[in-house]
Amino acid sequence: MDYLGAERKKAEFDVEDMKIVWAGSIHAHQLSDRISKLVANDPAFRKDDRTMLARKELFKNTLRKATYAWKLINELQLSEEEASKVRFYVDEPAFTDLHWGMFVPAIKGQGTDEQQKKWLSLSYKMKIIGCYAQTELGHGSNVQGLETTATFDPKTDEFIIDSPTLTSSKWWPGGLGKVSTHAVVYARLITGGQDYGVHGFIVQLRSLEDHNPLPGITVGDIGMKFGNGAYNTMDNGVLRFDHVRIPRDQMLMRVSQVTREGKFIESDVPRQLLYGTMVYVRKTIVMDASYALSKAVCIATRYSAVRRQFGSQNGGPETQVIDYKTQQSRLFPLLASAYAFRFVGEWLSWLYTDVTQRLQAKDYSTLPEAHACTAGLKSLTTTATADGIEECRKLCGGHGYLCTSGLPELYAVYVPACTYEGDNIVLMLQVARFLMKTVSQLGSGKQPVGTIAYMKRIEHLMQSHSDVQKPQDWLKPSSVLEAFEARAARMSVACAKNLSKFSNQEEGFAQLSADLVEAAVAHCQLIVVSKFIEKLQQDIPGNGVKQQLEVLSGVYSLFLLHKHQGDFLATGCITPKQASLANEQLRALYSKVRPNAISLVDSFNYTDHFLGSILGRYDGNVYPNLYEAAWKDPLNDSVVPDGYHDYIRPLLKQQLVPAKL
Amino acid sequence: MDYLGAERKKAEFDVEDMKIVWAGSIHAHQLSDRISKLVANDPAFRKDDRTMLARKELFKNTLRKATYAWKLINELQLSEEEASKVRFYVDEPAFTDLHWGMFVPAIKGQGTDEQQKKWLSLSYKMKIIGCYAQTELGHGSNVQGLETTATFDPKTDEFIIDSPTLTSSKWWPGGLGKVSTHAVVYARLITGGQDYGVHGFIVQLRSLEDHNPLPGITVGDIGMKFGNGAYNTMDNGVLRFDHVRIPRDQMLMRVSQVTREGKFIESDVPRQLLYGTMVYVRKTIVMDASYALSKAVCIATRYSAVRRQFGSQNGGPETQVIDYKTQQSRLFPLLASAYAFRFVGEWLSWLYTDVTQRLQAKDYSTLPEAHACTAGLKSLTTTATADGIEECRKLCGGHGYLCTSGLPELYAVYVPACTYEGDNIVLMLQVARFLMKTVSQLGSGKQPVGTIAYMKRIEHLMQSHSDVQKPQDWLKPSSVLEAFEARAARMSVACAKNLSKFSNQEEGFAQLSADLVEAAVAHCQLIVVSKFIEKLQQDIPGNGVKQQLEVLSGVYSLFLLHKHQGDFLATGCITPKQASLANEQLRALYSKVRPNAISLVDSFNYTDHFLGSILGRYDGNVYPNLYEAAWKDPLNDSVVPDGYHDYIRPLLKQQLVPAKL
Ligand SMILES: Cc1cc2nc3c(=O)[nH]c(=O)nc-3n(C[C@H](O)[C@H](O)[C@H](O)COP(=O)(O)OP(=O)(O)OC[C@H]3O[C@@H](n4cnc5c(N)ncnc54)[C@H](O)[C@@H]3O)c2cc1C
Ligand SMILES: Cc1cc2nc3c(=O)[nH]c(=O)nc-3n(C[C@H](O)[C@H](O)[C@H](O)COP(=O)(O)OP(=O)(O)OC[C@H]3O[C@@H](n4cnc5c(N)ncnc54)[C@H](O)[C@@H]3O)c2cc1C
Repeated sequence: MDYLGAERKKAEFDVEDMKIVWAGSIHAHQLSDRISKLVANDPAFRKDDRTMLARKELFKNTLRKATYAWKLINELQLSEEEASKVRFYVDEPAFTDLHWGMFVPAIKGQGTDEQQKKWLSLSYKMKIIGCYAQTELGHGSNVQGLETTATFDPKTDEFIIDSPTLTSSKWWPGGLGKVSTHAVVYARLITGGQDYGVHGFIVQLRSLEDHNPLPGITVGDIGMKFGNGAYNTMDNGVLRFDHVRIPRDQMLMRVSQVTREGKFIESDVPRQLLYGTMVYVRKTIVMDASYALSKAVCIATRYSAVRRQFGSQNGGPETQVIDYKTQQSRLFPLLASAYAFRFVGEWLSWLYTDVTQRLQAKDYSTLPEAHACTAGLKSLTTTATADGIEECRKLCGGHGYLCTSGLPELYAVYVPACTYEGDNIVLMLQVARFLMKTVSQLGSGKQPVGTIAYMKRIEHLMQSHSDVQKPQDWLKPSSVLEAFEARAARMSVACAKNLSKFSNQEEGFAQLSADLVEAAVAHCQLIVVSKFIEKLQQDIPGNGVKQQLEVLSGVYSLFLLHKHQGDFLATGCITPKQASLANEQLRALYSKVRPNAISLVDSFNYTDHFLGSILGRYDGNVYPNLYEAAWKDPLNDSVVPDGYHDYIRPLLKQQLVPAKL
Repeated sequence: MDYLGAERKKAEFDVEDMKIVWAGSIHAHQLSDRISKLVANDPAFRKDDRTMLARKELFKNTLRKATYAWKLINELQLSEEEASKVRFYVDEPAFTDLHWGMFVPAIKGQGTDEQQKKWLSLSYKMKIIGCYAQTELGHGSNVQGLETTATFDPKTDEFIIDSPTLTSSKWWPGGLGKVSTHAVVYARLITGGQDYGVHGFIVQLRSLEDHNPLPGITVGDIGMKFGNGAYNTMDNGVLRFDHVRIPRDQMLMRVSQVTREGKFIESDVPRQLLYGTMVYVRKTIVMDASYALSKAVCIATRYSAVRRQFGSQNGGPETQVIDYKTQQSRLFPLLASAYAFRFVGEWLSWLYTDVTQRLQAKDYSTLPEAHACTAGLKSLTTTATADGIEECRKLCGGHGYLCTSGLPELYAVYVPACTYEGDNIVLMLQVARFLMKTVSQLGSGKQPVGTIAYMKRIEHLMQSHSDVQKPQDWLKPSSVLEAFEARAARMSVACAKNLSKFSNQEEGFAQLSADLVEAAVAHCQLIVVSKFIEKLQQDIPGNGVKQQLEVLSGVYSLFLLHKHQGDFLATGCITPKQASLANEQLRALYSKVRPNAISLVDSFNYTDHFLGSILGRYDGNVYPNLYEAAWKDPLNDSVVPDGYHDYIRPLLKQQLVPAKL
């Protein structure tokens, strides 16, 4: 029985068409659909027991799944694209993520052709398993401060990799703790007694015969992380080197080399090339944000339509909680955000192609902008997604706190995205630096490009007044864009003005950094708002599809405007009256989302397996399934619990003295 | 070695005196100090392994600790106050929390003298163990919608307790799943064929001889909840009744009774009496918020002083991350919030005494205000605390994601406080209702009392202008109060105006509920701000103590003002210029907090055991301890992991076909 059938009938658009928009293309939709069902229908990928397993069992089970998936990929002769979708839908962090997502790209990006030939062919067949060992116990954000050393020994033509201090222990790399045979290790290159800063080296860690760590290597897992199940399927590791020797040709030498004699040479390939990889990785993270948020939103939306509380009249059914405006005002902006992040991710794919082509043509002019933009979007989308998942969990009331809701694990497994690949605050400070540089160069003839191009119109933006006079005026993309551009520009200019009061710019930047982060956030929100609007300028086929997306785009921007109205008002971009009109329009948009809500989350096309949530079941049949699942908890193995005779009974019987305590 | 010694020397106030302020009195300080050390020094209460244990082991261990603690309490003949501190410092959710915190108070509040005599004497000795069974699978927030029935059978003078539907299964009660012998069960009272709404009944669930469920009772645990360790030490349970009979005198009959003949009588004791218990429970929750937040802040503050990243000059040490203004602007408001919540909690204790005395004198005039105020403060402080704990975790970068940081478990165990004892949004809507009622009665001669008394000055507040002209003006309590009062009053009045446009008030309330929640939040923030200011009007002894608290009070209010500047600007309470002056003053206050930060968290007087965090260690010796703790993870039991032969080796050796998968 489809408990949500009535909801589905309300939709004012064609769900099948929206699925294609969400996936990005017909091809992508068909691929996702096929692979997600393949995974969902294979009992080997069952994950409903994950949160109940103790660490060792959990981890062993992940090894099984990863190996089984690899077998499947080989047997079915899946393409690279298909294989990565298999890993995606298996939905369990594993060493393979780092092997494919960091080790292979690092070699591709930083290895010479020869190195690529050798190491990639081994990696592609998984004859070796690699990880990415950068962070140390004492250094994460400050990569230049890493302490591990790679000292060239000209006598033997080798590097000696060493961990000179406790804090130089590698700490955090995924896949390192128990599985990887190799790692790309970042270490300070020392040759001829001189320190040439941090470079990457391929180091074998474990024997390919018996998996024991090689001499001089101490390696293990760093222990339990946030949540049950979640990221504990991953063996984030600790690693110490005691003068481990590797051949010279295992330094990744695409951008700099050490010769047989120990001479350090910077190659003519510019370091900027490495930025390409960074844009790629961050694009993936933004995409992942939209997937994680959409999962949470799908669960909370379906359950909000199933859950009824209060408002029963004459013994009729109670009100679905999705009909409460407070519920809508918390949930629908997240639904809109999921779509917004999806489209900005799509745009980042375009940006990556663009950057790659420019790099090949040795055009480095757009790199600073692309770098700031991806850093900012990574920070913005991961923070909003982590917070959004928790909000979705709370939207499910008490039942959201149960692991069977899927939401606790989703949060715990997602939230480190705010920290890895750049701490979100540190990244926003980078954006702020770029903004201050842009402002300082205005009028110097250097034209701002890409997502910062609006700064060209700075004079206009500093003094413009919003033309909004009635709620519906806030539906005009031009009015929304103008307000967001003016806010971002004015916040940047205000910071720049305050900065100029300091004689020491670095000191000023440090003192004002909290304000600078706010300006950077305003800039990044503008990017997301504008990319959503740009998406709607494209041709989007499907009955009612574009109209729905227009509503969501409005919800996304007006929700942000309301949430940050302090910025808009303080900078005088809009008046209190206009802020209140925006809020009124926002409320009207929520009512438009309401009948389409279930179909908008159906459009993500997620299987029940992928969602992993009883509250988010497609059929809405929540209660009997919650009830049944409860009995599977290990505590229910026996009616009278372990510990009754030792503890509970002596307590009740007032016989504590002889009790074994 | 004390790595934080240099930090401690910087303090500009007397830490020992601040400890007394934090504890509330010399007596309370000495008691806390003694009991916390007693618990910390007893290896039976070790908790560092908690996040690694599988459910059954974890739970059994909790039974052991709870029983051991009870033994200790008896052997040492501890007072009730001391005993509750023991449970507090053991710091592990257990059935005893519900027994002492809900079962006993429910009987006290709702039982007749006779019932109290019988059941409390059993309970005080723990000859029976009780829980509080209200929530059902289908009903939480809407208590009046509960489905469990208690039908009076005049033939046998018994009630028949029954679960007529699946959704009427009791679901969530702590201590129910595996331990409780008894429960206070909320059920619809039916007598003479008529439904008299929800009442409480004492029901025995399990045999006192062998702990088996009594006939007609199905009971079990509802399964894993958010996080490892955390609330999984608690047996939240499911319970179904199949026509279970209990004697008539097990209905809690203080406010209403059923006679031998089955006649329902509302006693002359007014239902409002029950509000007293609610004020008590919520006061405790607000206190707990300050404890949980202060723990998180203590960990993040100490670690922020230990952690160094970037900014090394000439090979000197890097910058302590606590010196970054972004770190301060995230951390110090939380430090200030911990103190703010502590003081508002203290004030709530006074309120509880006041309410109790008034109830005894049959003065019910302040009850609606007290009820709204405690509902709002519960909502405000628990939301801020849950978010604050997560922020503290993120402030610790990657290492905050490790369970050994203590923060993941602290978050997971704390966050349901946003949901239980009233969903935080539902509570804010109650506050909003009270606000709208107050506004509508202004001018009717009915004088607003207590925390809403500022509404008496509504005419002034609607048109006042802040007199702030320079940053320091924001240090004047009167200027701060005036701004917060004006903002709260104007937001309420604006909502009331919008409401009046609706012909149907209920419909209007529903439509505007998101705005109403914002107005309620503004009102509740004002309460916390004003109680902090009132606290500072008292005599506070100790060198520099009061000065520090004044700084924190300023941080708390100006941080809120900055965060919600949209409200202040939209309502015209302050100008953009004044908002910017507030921000400037806030920045100056952060610099004043900085040298005192470590000592301000030392003043909480938490033992390392209670904190349960390597990052938050008193001695700051973080890295060697993180490193050592890692090796205790079960995955490190063997160098080569379980699963190597079955999965990793076949993968590496390309021998997947014969692998057992
Ligand atoms: C689940 C997970 C997986 C990971 N996987 C890998 C992996 O595979 N390989 C790998 O090498 N690493 C990995 N990491 C490590 C990760 O990259 C780092 O944790 C991350 O870069 C953050 O650095 P940190 O931990 O040193 O934080 P810190 O820099 O110590 O941050 C602590 C606080 O200081 C603040 N701060 C730091 N610098 C500044 C500044 N200049 N200005 C203002 N504030 C500042 C931060 O905002 C933060 O609040 C992983 C981490 C996690 C949690
Ligand atoms: C860890 C934990 C321990 C607990 N312990 C106990 C216990 O010992 N005994 C016991 O009896 N219960 C217990 N509970 C249950 C708890 O009291 C309920 O979960 C709580 O009251 C919330 O109710 P709900 O789950 O029905 O949420 P719901 O009411 O279903 O909330 C779902 C969503 O609907 C929204 N909503 C609901 N009504 C309205 C409305 N009128 N207007 C606007 N929005 C609305 C909420 O804001 C929320 O977003 C516990 C719960 C937890 C998580």
